[in-house]
Formats: sequence, C-alpha cells, structure tokens
Amino acid sequence: TAAFPQLEKSQEESLVDNLLQWSLANGLVIYPPNFKSYQPVSAPTTLYPTPFPKVAFQDAKDVQLLFNELYAKVASDEKFLFGIIDELAQFDSDFTGKLWETYIKAKNQGIVQPLSLGIFRSDYMVNEIEGKKPQIKQIEFNTVSVSFGGLSEKVGELHNYLNNHGDYSLDEDSSKFYKTEDLPISDSIKKLSDGLADGDYYYNNQKKSTGTIVLVVVQDRERNVFDQRLLEFALLSNHGIKSIRLTLSEIESKTFIEPNSKKLFIKSTNDEVSVVYFRSGYAPTDFNSQKDWDNRLILETSKAIKAPTLLTQLAGAKKIQQILTDEEIISKFITKNPETENNFSQLLDTFVAIYPLDNSPKGLDAKKLALETPDNFVLKPQREGGGNNIYKQDIPNFLKSIPEKDWAGYILMELIHPQHYQNKILRDGEIYNEPIISELGRFGTIVFNQESGEILSNNDAGWLLRSKFESSNEGGVAAGFGCVDSVVLN
Amino acid sequence: TAAFPQLEKSQEESLVDNLLQWSLANGLVIYPPNFKSYQPVSAPTTLYPTPFPKVAFQDAKDVQLLFNELYAKVASDEKFLFGIIDELAQFDSDFTGKLWETYIKAKNQGIVQPLSLGIFRSDYMVNEIEGKKPQIKQIEFNTVSVSFGGLSEKVGELHNYLNNHGDYSLDEDSSKFYKTEDLPISDSIKKLSDGLADGDYYYNNQKKSTGTIVLVVVQDRERNVFDQRLLEFALLSNHGIKSIRLTLSEIESKTFIEPNSKKLFIKSTNDEVSVVYFRSGYAPTDFNSQKDWDNRLILETSKAIKAPTLLTQLAGAKKIQQILTDEEIISKFITKNPETENNFSQLLDTFVAIYPLDNSPKGLDAKKLALETPDNFVLKPQREGGGNNIYKQDIPNFLKSIPEKDWAGYILMELIHPQHYQNKILRDGEIYNEPIISELGRFGTIVFNQESGEILSNNDAGWLLRSKFESSNEGGVAAGFGCVDSVVLN
Ligand SMILES: Nc1ncnc2c1ncn2[C@@H]1O[C@H](COP(=O)(O)OP(=O)(O)OP(=O)(O)O)[C@@H](O)[C@H]1O
Ligand SMILES: Nc1ncnc2c1ncn2[C@@H]1O[C@H](COP(=O)(O)OP(=O)(O)OP(=O)(O)O)[C@@H](O)[C@H]1O
Ligand SMILES: [Mg+2]
Ligand SMILES: [Mg+2]
Ligand SMILES: [Mg+2]
Ligand SMILES: [Mg+2]
Repeated sequence: TAAFPQLEKSQEESLVDNLLQWSLANGLVIYPPNFKSYQPVSAPTTLYPTPFPKVAFQDAKDVQLLFNELYAKVASDEKFLFGIIDELAQFDSDFTGKLWETYIKAKNQGIVQPLSLGIFRSDYMVNEIEGKKPQIKQIEFNTVSVSFGGLSEKVGELHNYLNNHGDYSLDEDSSKFYKTEDLPISDSIKKLSDGLADGDYYYNNQKKSTGTIVLVVVQDRERNVFDQRLLEFALLSNHGIKSIRLTLSEIESKTFIEPNSKKLFIKSTNDEVSVVYFRSGYAPTDFNSQKDWDNRLILETSKAIKAPTLLTQLAGAKKIQQILTDEEIISKFITKNPETENNFSQLLDTFVAIYPLDNSPKGLDAKKLALETPDNFVLKPQREGGGNNIYKQDIPNFLKSIPEKDWAGYILMELIHPQHYQNKILRDGEIYNEPIISELGRFGTIVFNQESGEILSNNDAGWLLRSKFESSNEGGVAAGFGCVDSVVLN
Repeated sequence: TAAFPQLEKSQEESLVDNLLQWSLANGLVIYPPNFKSYQPVSAPTTLYPTPFPKVAFQDAKDVQLLFNELYAKVASDEKFLFGIIDELAQFDSDFTGKLWETYIKAKNQGIVQPLSLGIFRSDYMVNEIEGKKPQIKQIEFNTVSVSFGGLSEKVGELHNYLNNHGDYSLDEDSSKFYKTEDLPISDSIKKLSDGLADGDYYYNNQKKSTGTIVLVVVQDRERNVFDQRLLEFALLSNHGIKSIRLTLSEIESKTFIEPNSKKLFIKSTNDEVSVVYFRSGYAPTDFNSQKDWDNRLILETSKAIKAPTLLTQLAGAKKIQQILTDEEIISKFITKNPETENNFSQLLDTFVAIYPLDNSPKGLDAKKLALETPDNFVLKPQREGGGNNIYKQDIPNFLKSIPEKDWAGYILMELIHPQHYQNKILRDGEIYNEPIISELGRFGTIVFNQESGEILSNNDAGWLLRSKFESSNEGGVAAGFGCVDSVVLN
C-alpha cells in the first residue's frame, strides 16, 4: 500500500477543514509573530502521519532510561565537566563561559539543593540502508528547555481523529486507512508533568501536594506557550500542583529567598517554589544583561530543584556529546552490566562519528575531513535552539573566516541521511507539498543527586516527531521551517 | 463574603493571561468576523463565575424532562399545531409560512420516519424578590439549533481551573476563593452528543454503531463552529459515530436518496445518514432561495431522523409558548399525575404572563397594556436567533407602524427582572466592567414518535449560563453583545 492516501481535491479540502478545526478546538496551536494574546493560529502540522520503522521506534524507547542515566552521571561528575567546560568556555565566553562562571559563583556561595531534575529529549534521525535494519542515529541530546512534549501528544490525537473519522480513506466504505495500532499517541503531556511532579515530591521529602508550586521561567512573548501550558494544566489537574510563569528578568522583583533556608518564594502569593522549570535560559538572547545572569544565580543557589541545574545544562553541550561517543569514556558513566548490556550496545549504536576540531590526532584528521569532504558533515557550535549550525559546503569558508585556534569550540558531525517522504505540510492554512524528512525525539525525566550521583527516579516520557522540508537544513517549528508530525509505524 | 474577588491590577493581569491561554489551549474559542480558517479568538467570557441561587438552579433541572415531554407531545399533535400555525403563517409568510408549507408538502409526499429527535434548551432568568424564594422564569423554549452546549462545558472548566489555580484568591495563602462544590461544570458536550447517538441508535432499530453517520446542517462561514465541533468530536470518540457538515444549499449536490427506502446517503462516501442535526435553518436568512427550501423538504421526507422535524421546530414558536401558559391547554399534553405533580406545578411556576395581540378578550386587554404600560413588556415576533424583539418604549411606535391586523403575529411578554452583578466581561483581550445580567439555559434531548406521541428516551443534557451587559436588551454571544459564563451556586 502507498505511504499516504492519494486524496481527491474535494477530499483534501474537507480533510483540511477537519484538521484545522480539530487543532483549534484541542489546543494544537501557537501564537503567530506579533500576536495578540487572544488570537493564536493552528500549529503547523503534516496532513498525514509519516512512516517510521517500528524497530527504530522501539530502539529509541529502549535506550531512553540509559541515556537519562548517562547524562545524570555526567552532570554529577563535576571534575569531568570541569576538564572540558573550563577550556570550552574560552571559545564561547559569551554563553558557555557565562554558564560556567555562574556555576562557579553558585558553588562559592554554596549550593544547598543537591537534587537535580532532568527533563531531557534525545533526538534521532533514521538511517535506512537497503537490506539493513533501519537504525536510529542521535542528532543531539537536549538537557534544557526541551519543547513540543505538549503539541506532540496533540498531533498524535489529531492524526488518530482524522483516521478514525475516515478522512484518510479513499474508497466508498469509509474504513480507516491506517490501523489504529500503527498510530501510537505520545503520552508526553502526562509524563512530562509527572516528571515535574516528581521534582516537587522529592523537594518535599517524598510527600505529595504540600502546596509548593512550580516556577516556569519563560521567554518574553513566547510563541510556543501552549506547548508549555498543556504541561502546566496537567500538572494542576493530575497532581494539584500550581505553576507560575516569570521571565528571567522578573526573578528579582517577583520572588524572594528566605535567607536561612534558601527557600524560594513568590512575593505576591507567598507560594514556596519546589521546582524551577526552565523554558528559557538556553540561548544568549535569553539574557539581556548581567542582571539576568544574576537572577539565574539566585535560582541556582536557592533550595528549589532546578530543571535543569547549570551543570545539567552544561552536560548537554555538543562538545560533551562528541566526547561521549568514545566507548572508553562513556564506560566511566554507564557500565555494561548483565542487566543493561543490550541497552548499552543499542545506545552506542545510535552514535555517528563526531569529531573535535582541536590539535589532538583525531582533531587533526577532522580538520582535513572538514576542508576536503565537507559534504558529509555538519559543523556545530556550543549552542541550542536552532539556526546555529554550518552545513556542508559552507563549512570550509566558515572555518577559514575564524582563527584556527577557535575551531576547537566546534564539533564536526557526520550527516545522517534519513529517507524522504512525500507527506504534506499545512501551515497558516496553506498546503506545502515537498519532500520532507523527520526527526524523532524521545523524552525522559530523571531526578538525581548531583553530589552523589544517586538516581531517585528515571522515566521515559513519550516522544515527538518533527518534520521539515528536505531542502531546509534546520527544523525549528516555531522558527518557521518545520512542523509537528506523528508516526505511522511500519 | 463578596460576590467577586476584588483583585489588584497585577493579579487581574495574570488572571487574564491564564484565562486566555487556558481558553485557547482548550477549545473555548470562536472565529472572529472575516476569519481565516486557521485563526480563532478566545470566546468572550466573564472573568468570574456569576452567583446563581442553588434552588433556582435545581428547579431548572427538575422541570427539564417534563418540558422535553411537553414539547414532544405538542410536536406530535398535528391537529393542535394546525389550528395555530396555519393562522400564524399568514402573519409571517416568509418564514413560519414557509416552514408550514414545507411540512404540508412533506406530508403529501409521505413522511417515512415517524421518529423525531428533540435537542432542546429551556431558557430562564431569575426573578429575585426580597423575602421570596428566587424563582426561575422562562424566557423561551428552543426546539431548533440550540447552541453553546459545547462552550458551556468549557467555560465551567475554565472557571474551575482559575479557582483551583488560586487566581481568584486575594490573600497570601493562595487558597480557593470558591468552594469546588459551588462551581458545577455542565456535562453538555457528553450529554448532547449522547442525544445524537440516541437518534442513531433508534434509527438502527436499537443497534449501536452500524456505521451510519450524523449529517450536521450548518451555516456557511459559521463563527460558532467550535461549539458544534466539540459535540462532533465527542460523538466520534464516545460512540464511534462520524459526522459530516453540509450547508443547506449543498444538500442536493452532495447527498442522494435511495428511492425505495428513502434512506439518505452522502455521495462522496456512500455513508448512510441516521440523524440530520440542524445547526442552520432556524432563520429566514438561512434560506437563500426556493432551492434551499426544496433541500429542507428532501431532508424532511428522507428516512433519517431529523433533529428537529419541521413540526418540532414549529412547536417552538413563540406563539405556542404563549398558548401553553394556559393551564387548561397545557394539561392536554402533560398531566398532573401523582408521580409528576410536583414537577408540573414547578413547571407552571416558571411562566410569566404572555399575551396574544389578537381580538380575543385577552388580546384586547393586552393591546391596551402594550400601548399604556409598555415598560413592563417585550414584544416578540415568531423568530429565532436574537435581534428580533421590540422592548419597552419602542413597542407603541412599532405597533402603530404596522396594520393592527398583523399584531396577532406577535406575542407580548412580561419582562423578567433579574439581579445585576458587577462581574467583568473579557472580549478580544479587553475587560468590560458594567453590570451584567444572566440567562440560564437547560439542555434536554428526547427521542419520540411523532405519530403516536410515544417517548423512547428523555434526558437532561446539562446547562448554559450566558451573561450580557444589563444595558443591552439582547444577549447573543456570537452577535457580539453577550458572553458565556458559569454559575457559582449560592
Ligand atoms: N548529524 C546530522 N545529520 C543530519 N541533520 C542534522 C545533523 N545534526 C543536526 N542536523 C539538523 O540540524 C538541526 C539542528 O541541529 P541540532 O539539533 O544539533 O541544533 P540545536 O541548535 O541544538 O537545535 P535545537 O536544540 O533547537 O533542536 C537538527 O534538527 C537536524 O535537522
Ligand atoms: N421576558 C423577558 N424578560 C427579560 N428579558 C427578555 C425576555 N424575553 C427575552 N428577553 C431578552 O431578549 C433575549 C432574546 O429573546 P428570545 O430568546 O426570546 O429571542 P430569540 O430570538 O429566540 O433568541 P435566541 O433564540 O437567539 O435565544 C433574551 O436572551 C433575553 O436577554
Ligand atoms: Mg535539535
Ligand atoms: Mg539542541
Ligand atoms: Mg433566546
Ligand atoms: Mg430562541
């Protein structure tokens, strides 16, 4: 059977009608640029779910707990991080440097909360090679402000609704085009909010609902606010935990710290904050001045559990990802014990080659590769949020434009080549019909002790499929070149 | 305690933020004028739930099944309707006349479906007189295209969310301002979609899910589409019943009738229609030409169950409402049997005086009243959908402007004087702070045999509170002078 229903024009029109109105009635929405607070638009989505190999989908699930553990262990190993980040900070003094500097300040002032909440997303594309088992390959591991857990669940429900409603069916008997069991729905709204509740629970010495609240640190005029709100609403209705949203620059004026206990409170309500959930603070533009960094410091030294701590955020640096592709190094954090052996090799199998661009032997090889066969690579700085990478033919000129000593601030990563699909993207009511490629994200939540490395809870938290035109190098949904999608397993 | 929280400016701002984003994430939305299909706005709502007397709220529930039965019996009494409507048709040949004419045509062609589905809403305002029990007084009984069952459930959830989130609380301990048990949530989405499923069930000789579908007859570019969609989505997810939306003018081109069985089918999918659910066809503007009336006739003579049939729609005429205020007449349809005695008198208690304006002794009295004390009255033509009534001082001049023989097409109704409340209305992000008054609607669904009068199912289906500025005479939400609200029982 074909990957996608081949609908007639009138069928497609009624599909689009149903899709848009379902989206708008069910919170699958974002704010458009220059929005009014009462007027969203439907989030960009595909018309159809995109085929995804069942084995690869399962692989991503299988390795998630071990990946959570890996990054928790890294974040708990200050010495290891110091060795890497302290050097890296030179190349990126504006951001990695500031994160590190803020951590050092926090440490000097005293870090009173040993627990850290990881809300992670491991991103993959599928390498499909004729005759071989399709294999997930990791794009990156995100340890701060992972998004689309809210909209992901919604788009899965959307595609299921359209399938159940017969909108994908071609023939007159209106049966379903896809089997329901092939259209899984991510439970990421529930699971991610459960993760926040876990943080609250451990903050309160394993007691539920003591009235403490979650502080969501947000960007000013965030457009992807509904993705965040869906988690907040679930947190309140499933766990009775309230949340409040502040920007980084509001922290000083709207919160206060109890000097002895270092407990963090909201001024207007006297609410005690158990968890600080960062949906901002992952990019230089999130800090407008030293005051915002000072506010980040206030939060880091408070007793509230941070999701993530500065160390956990730094553990997600691209440089760390590169270093962890070395089996010897990764084995210091997670071990091949009989119980996890399978997952461990599954995890290693998700890595493609990632090279440093320094003067180590590996680095020197990589410099040659970057200049001679750039088409196989993407060059990444220590940044998050999309739009920062340099692709293929652009790499040599870019490298030549900066001093060679600064190259060490970048990593060189093998490009993954996922299959293209002729799905359609709907954006602002318009249908785009170009080949797309998809990226699977798997969410995870983990509570761990950053001082001892002990893990208190560790959970898979659903998944996300984002798709973008094959022709565009980056895939940010809010940024305008991608959309949320769901899988049809095959 | 005060009726409403007296919030500070900053508290109100964050309340509005939470309110808007909850609404947009949960389908409490409508399309603005000249909308794009992917861009809704939050529905106008009150900031707070509005006080409503518990006893009066219960009264409306208590009488709903009996009201459903009453109007089912009236719709089943063709002779009674003939005596009234045939005369009324003269005064309003454009609409009541056309409905009646179309019914007569259908009858001549042969009506093959004896069953009728009533989806009703009985509307009330509360008369609160010092020292007396607050009493619901009926504004009107709607038998066609009753709306806001979808948004009503949502606004109840909204006000509960805000209360649970502490957004209404004034003091520092962030407790709830209202008791949860005083903020009931209407279950009208579920109940109204259950009503549609009842129609499907009886169409299929009491079998569930045979693959038949519901045809929703809609207005072109309906702005209140999400209110309708919420019922459709529940119908699919709770009952597995699909629905399709067509305008009246699309009926001929997009459906066909099987000549022998008179079964109604959708051309593109061959789906058999069990229930035709009218969310259009209640106002003259819904019919653009004789062709639309012909299409209405096609539906009426099909085997599908209509919600409502033409007779059921006509039973909701304001004139019928007036006639039914006579205890002798109403007793012909519902009787004071020991079981229902209490409800029967409760039902009678909901009536205010309604007069004919004809040459009967009562009518002659009423003409005097209309001209001499118009401030006590509202004058109503045989129309639905708001904006048609004449109020108070406007009545004498209006009556004088038309021939006296045409006055009989109107009814004169005593004005109800509900209490004003200083709630606030939020519309397009702006807060309006003027005294408001509220109207309670109670939904009901009933399947009955229009030939025999037999009742097959009869259910209460939740409720609606709409509020409007006291200064505006009409309260249509979509029309722009009202909003959806919920109750805080007291
Ligand atoms: N090795 C790769 N092969 C193919 N495409 C890649 C590779 N690495 C990155 N990309 C593409 O570039 C995009 C951005 O890369 P990456 O996710 O590493 O950057 P980022 O700045 O951390 O973005 P974000 O955190 O917003 O997801 C990816 O979503 C993917 O589409
Ligand atoms: N007796 C009355 N006392 C006070 N207000 C009234 C009375 N009758 C009607 N109104 C006001 O006028 C509005 C419209 O009246 P009514 O509901 O009878 O008209 P309609 O055209 O059938 O409207 P719709 O079907 O859209 O609700 C009511 O919602 C109410 O606000
Ligand atoms: Mg990424
Ligand atoms: Mg990233
Ligand atoms: Mg009305
Ligand atoms: Mg009406």
